[in-house]
Amino acid sequence: MIDTANLDRSAIEQVVRSILTQRMGGQQGANIPEDKPNPLVVNISARHIHLTQEHVEILFGKGKTLTEMKPLYQDGYYAAEETLSIVGPRRRMLPNVRVLGPCRDDSQVELAFTDGISLGIDLPVRISGDVKDTPGCILMGPAGVVELKQGVIRAMRHVHMGPADLEYYGVQNGDKMKLRVESPGCTTVLEDVVVRAGNGIKLEVHIDTDEGNCLNLDAASKVELLKMEPCSCKTH
Amino acid sequence: MIDTANLDRSAIEQVVRSILTQRMGGQQGANIPEDKPNPLVVNISARHIHLTQEHVEILFGKGKTLTEMKPLYQDGYYAAEETLSIVGPRRRMLPNVRVLGPCRDDSQVELAFTDGISLGIDLPVRISGDVKDTPGCILMGPAGVVELKQGVIRAMRHVHMGPADLEYYGVQNGDKMKLRVESPGCTTVLEDVVVRAGNGIKLEVHIDTDEGNCLNLDAASKVELLKMEPCSCKTH
Repeated sequence: MIDTANLDRSAIEQVVRSILTQRMGGQQGANIPEDKPNPLVVNISARHIHLTQEHVEILFGKGKTLTEMKPLYQDGYYAAEETLSIVGPRRRMLPNVRVLGPCRDDSQVELAFTDGISLGIDLPVRISGDVKDTPGCILMGPAGVVELKQGVIRAMRHVHMGPADLEYYGVQNGDKMKLRVESPGCTTVLEDVVVRAGNGIKLEVHIDTDEGNCLNLDAASKVELLKMEPCSCKTH
Repeated sequence: MIDTANLDRSAIEQVVRSILTQRMGGQQGANIPEDKPNPLVVNISARHIHLTQEHVEILFGKGKTLTEMKPLYQDGYYAAEETLSIVGPRRRMLPNVRVLGPCRDDSQVELAFTDGISLGIDLPVRISGDVKDTPGCILMGPAGVVELKQGVIRAMRHVHMGPADLEYYGVQNGDKMKLRVESPGCTTVLEDVVVRAGNGIKLEVHIDTDEGNCLNLDAASKVELLKMEPCSCKTH
């Protein structure tokens, strides 16, 4: 049998895994000036769940709230102590999926493509919050069960940016950028990295575990965040 | 619990999954002429094992040989009916890993990075056959056990080519190319795609399940195989 207890532990570790380009000498492309205002941080988001307070109480008990286990890179966000089992079509299950806090206005499940295959869910790639016509699932907690009619997505690769970063990279909310990661034997360029702007937000790229494993982020020697400008020499 | 029986079935399906760029209208980059001699096929290699005949007999019984279950895209190669369990450090196990035939001079295990994490093996990225100083594992079969001292790798992304393809793409054995796959919300460029030349070989790119899931190969709308020429406009 697969050791699911250990699988989950490594998944949790990935939530907080972080690579700083400072450490890598992070040279920039020609279209971006050298003096960036903030370090480029790339984090892998393991599968996780966002919940409404109403769903927290159904799943964990009347009056219950989420308990912070570990802070995330963005101020005010955290991995909660609470986990849930996700049940997909044909009653396949993913156990011990971490809940992130604080609560939101809508519950949402963010899975890697590999998770979707094991659950039997054909995951749409969506920006967080854009859950119209997405698949649903059953959430099972210690105190109850919630059926989500929709909200199961593969989160689109994205980069959180504050105003100084938007200006530095010359992009706006909703623009797409690309992330090039040099890694031994598996250098990869991720296109479709969506800019998500906000005040009080730290510069941070979020990719999922499939993307992180594809390009072996832990072994990366260089990371570049680049504008999706058409390449005039057409070699790519 | 994770439904490992179903996981394995989907993994097997991936062994034979195939995308033809013909179907996608596969437009080429400016550095490659239009009239390619062979269709560009991209296949995902699920985790698998190559065995020596000696190891087949230890694992499955004296005098036993591999039984063909399903032919692979390259003539003469096949997924065998035989499967093995792989045991890594700390006795974590991956069950039901498919053996590919025919037998080779050295046994070798090719895993995705995700598999390495669940087994607790830090996988080196290697070209198949280059197993010097790679991790080992235990192979468990119905008739016996083999301890591999080395041979557990993540196979480097590669493209099999015959002489006509080498000429068409203007590359040689051992060169690196890049594969760009357009896919909804997760377009990705895989660099480090190594050319593996051979006579009687069909043009075929092999990526692993992490790479296939990163870029959602099944949903791809366009695939391009490109030379790693430096980009003169420096936008990538």
